[in-house]
Amino acid sequence: MSSTSAIAIKNATDLWFKQVSRVSAIFDACTDSQLKFEIAPGRNSGFYLLGHLTAVHDAMLPLLRISDRLYPELDEPFIKNPDRSGLPCPEPATVRNQWATVTAALNKGIAALSFDEWMERHASISPDNFVNEPHRNRFSVLLSRTAHLTEHIGQLLWINK
Amino acid sequence: MSSTSAIAIKNATDLWFKQVSRVSAIFDACTDSQLKFEIAPGRNSGFYLLGHLTAVHDAMLPLLRISDRLYPELDEPFIKNPDRSGLPCPEPATVRNQWATVTAALNKGIAALSFDEWMERHASISPDNFVNEPHRNRFSVLLSRTAHLTEHIGQLLWINK
Repeated sequence: MSSTSAIAIKNATDLWFKQVSRVSAIFDACTDSQLKFEIAPGRNSGFYLLGHLTAVHDAMLPLLRISDRLYPELDEPFIKNPDRSGLPCPEPATVRNQWATVTAALNKGIAALSFDEWMERHASISPDNFVNEPHRNRFSVLLSRTAHLTEHIGQLLWINK
Repeated sequence: MSSTSAIAIKNATDLWFKQVSRVSAIFDACTDSQLKFEIAPGRNSGFYLLGHLTAVHDAMLPLLRISDRLYPELDEPFIKNPDRSGLPCPEPATVRNQWATVTAALNKGIAALSFDEWMERHASISPDNFVNEPHRNRFSVLLSRTAHLTEHIGQLLWINK
């Protein structure tokens, strides 16, 4: 592919790396008890968002066809159910480690993909259907998950410390 | 350019159009007085974010080299100063109209650019410097402003109605 195609990918992956760094810095700057507070009255806690983002990013590993998931058990407390569901839930230290592990695996996979590989299908569409829906590629996953992460960064900027 | 390049642009512009539609729907669903409330205690009002996003998107017109700005007077109350600055400020109905006008002009310009045009420089870098920093292209503006908008959508999802 031409060099401009590589630049377009660098534009998008640089933004992903930047947003992941920003949110990691927010989590790192909070104590476990600060994370447990609601960010605004009646809204999610920072801890819930840490678990939620870890689970959503973990699911990107198979969706981008990088690898199997690492922590599918996070879906029940952090995706399928809302904050304060009363479900058993791992400790903050555990989820912090899972976030770091998922981030490292995902970023390594993201950094390795070429333009042509980004334009290939993601795992939720079959090769047959992809012929008619070529926009359902890995790149759409990168952009939409960057947006998902960024939406929650907007909320996490309001965390009380 | 190849068809995959056009698809990459479609991926990114579709996300922009989607996020603009989402935030427009949030503003449309609020009365003027609902917009004036703080979204969370001590945080921005919906009205401030409406003015802020209108001003930032208005500035994208020259940054993307689409056209001159339409409403540079919005910078003073909505970018250079925070909410509740006490500065004179237009009425909500006025800013709603400005948002609609900026959105229409910007979306028309965004829809018209080809992959090669997205890979050209944005207005804040000179042609000479762009030779060595080719990632400072229009596409980087689209992605970063999509992120900026999405960060505020995360906050606007918490608006009280």
